Amino acid sequence: MSGVGDVTNSGGGSAARRAGKPTLAVVGATGAVGTVMLGILSERADVWGEIRLIASPRSAGRKLTVRGEQVEVVALSEEAFEGVDVAMFDVPDEVSAQWAPIAASKGAVAVDNSGAFRMDPNVPLVVPEVNAHAARVRPRGIISNPNCTTLSMIVAMGALHAEFGLSELIVSSYQAVSGAGKEGVDTLREQLVKVAGTELGTQPGDVRRAVGDTGPFPGPMALNVVPFAGSLKEDGWTSEELKVRNESRKILGLPGLRVTATCVRVPVITTHSLTVHARFENEVTVAAAHEILASAPGVVLCDNPAKGEFPTPADVVGTDPTWVGRVRRSMDDPNALELFVCGDNLRKGAALNTAQIAEVVAAELTGVA
Amino acid sequence: MSGVGDVTNSGGGSAARRAGKPTLAVVGATGAVGTVMLGILSERADVWGEIRLIASPRSAGRKLTVRGEQVEVVALSEEAFEGVDVAMFDVPDEVSAQWAPIAASKGAVAVDNSGAFRMDPNVPLVVPEVNAHAARVRPRGIISNPNCTTLSMIVAMGALHAEFGLSELIVSSYQAVSGAGKEGVDTLREQLVKVAGTELGTQPGDVRRAVGDTGPFPGPMALNVVPFAGSLKEDGWTSEELKVRNESRKILGLPGLRVTATCVRVPVITTHSLTVHARFENEVTVAAAHEILASAPGVVLCDNPAKGEFPTPADVVGTDPTWVGRVRRSMDDPNALELFVCGDNLRKGAALNTAQIAEVVAAELTGVA
Repeated sequence: MSGVGDVTNSGGGSAARRAGKPTLAVVGATGAVGTVMLGILSERADVWGEIRLIASPRSAGRKLTVRGEQVEVVALSEEAFEGVDVAMFDVPDEVSAQWAPIAASKGAVAVDNSGAFRMDPNVPLVVPEVNAHAARVRPRGIISNPNCTTLSMIVAMGALHAEFGLSELIVSSYQAVSGAGKEGVDTLREQLVKVAGTELGTQPGDVRRAVGDTGPFPGPMALNVVPFAGSLKEDGWTSEELKVRNESRKILGLPGLRVTATCVRVPVITTHSLTVHARFENEVTVAAAHEILASAPGVVLCDNPAKGEFPTPADVVGTDPTWVGRVRRSMDDPNALELFVCGDNLRKGAALNTAQIAEVVAAELTGVA
Repeated sequence: MSGVGDVTNSGGGSAARRAGKPTLAVVGATGAVGTVMLGILSERADVWGEIRLIASPRSAGRKLTVRGEQVEVVALSEEAFEGVDVAMFDVPDEVSAQWAPIAASKGAVAVDNSGAFRMDPNVPLVVPEVNAHAARVRPRGIISNPNCTTLSMIVAMGALHAEFGLSELIVSSYQAVSGAGKEGVDTLREQLVKVAGTELGTQPGDVRRAVGDTGPFPGPMALNVVPFAGSLKEDGWTSEELKVRNESRKILGLPGLRVTATCVRVPVITTHSLTVHARFENEVTVAAAHEILASAPGVVLCDNPAKGEFPTPADVVGTDPTWVGRVRRSMDDPNALELFVCGDNLRKGAALNTAQIAEVVAAELTGVA
């Protein structure tokens, strides 16, 4: 365990209270997910000694608030990882690819929210409610955090899998624009200003002409949905769709699981929704699924459509759990369920799960686990 | 064949040109679909003699334009159907349930776009590109037009079925607000004005509080998606989801087809989109599917994501065909395809298909077919 007092720009605060606790670095502290992360670190049980904020050199010197204290951001460098026990990375793939191994070489456990290491067989891909045990085996000193779309459903799927044995997932997403970062949010907000108060949306191309620049998206996001997220990969699949498939298999420990996803972007700021057709090895009932989901950690069952109760992004945004509603048993298949699932893509879909993984490591390092 | 000159308020226009042609009545001419219908009747090959416009008594006397001529709306009554050969109904279920049989008893073929008769075994449910032959057998003198969500995909599915033999459909919808009529459109437009230019959409319930009244929807439509359309039926299914199942089976003539739908409303004015997992009896390839879809009547293949080509509602709205893109073969199943399909829910999804059915009947009545 590293000391606290020997680092400048520290967020150590009350040294006595934090003595003996591990040091956390947040790399990418000034980004969209980093900002949510600082809020989450301020809300959760305080397991950390120092919290060091790291960002690109151009952000160095800025002061950000975490745990109610001002902490100065330091520039990303090898030295910035001195004495760090756990380093969270919320940065682009190529930055993680370069710097997470450096953090690991300095003795930190890197918890990475990029796509750089997720499918590396020597890097565990962890969702604490589903496979916390996997975090202990990390040959490269790196643990990956899953993609936000996978994370928006996997806690609920893991709970159902534990009971019924999952054999197939067919998923369609309704993904929020914040999955494309601040630029995605700004683009939708600007487009909404252009279409609000108009009669647009009834003639071919009228919305496209009115919004002009589509920003990071391959089509207008206001008054539209766009069936493409990420980049184009083999056989017409997008990177986002392949992530849902490959990551779900790895997290659940089911390398042969049948998984098909079609990812569609919708004009929602934050919170991904998914329709899920989940097939199991054993017969299912709605009552049994309800019981499992109602008691699963990290899941909220919201399923009483007679009273208008089902999850929607507008209600789920800003909350931590995976929300599940519209649970039905497939009429043609007693082994399959249909569900509608919502999860905040910046919280459980990114910052929260990263924080949870870091806490699992902290507990291990301090002998609590 | 009825004459033209014996009806007042007629839209007969040039009597000589229209002599011998069948008389059409449009019931519900002043509604959302009726308005689109008048435009479609003005664009298509002119197979009609008189076009009579019928609506509720409070709309009687209004003048509407069809085929470039002003036609006075007459009030719905038994007499209004005198001399009518084909009567289209774009009215609520209960109005159709009462009046379509009256029109039929007066000798008209009723083409009904409500849900009143769709599952009646004595009423054919017709999509001309798929099952035009079914229109000839109509023991009650009524032909039903399918629900807009079913119609948004069924032409493409019918073409693929003819080649590969369909065995299962798993569908998720991205349904436009105009499916809930003018009130639906007005509600979304009003909500967009309330959220545009704000920072809403990041805190639980902030959009819900800002938009207030949710109109005909069970949740906010701006910056949100709502996994509920229609009314609640047995076992947690909605009426809309059951329609997709039951109507697809009837149109395709496959009473045992496995069909599962989850219907979700999205903030789009007009044009429904669907993700479709389609399983077939025979092995499929993307190349063969492309070939079929590219040559299928009423279908546009738009599938080159490397060039940013895939259908979106903003581009499809106001057009007639079913647009298909993102065609992929399921990685786990050589017999299954994944597709993204868009169709204008007011045109092919309602008015256009009704007009096409009426034209099939007109051709039969005039001996052209």
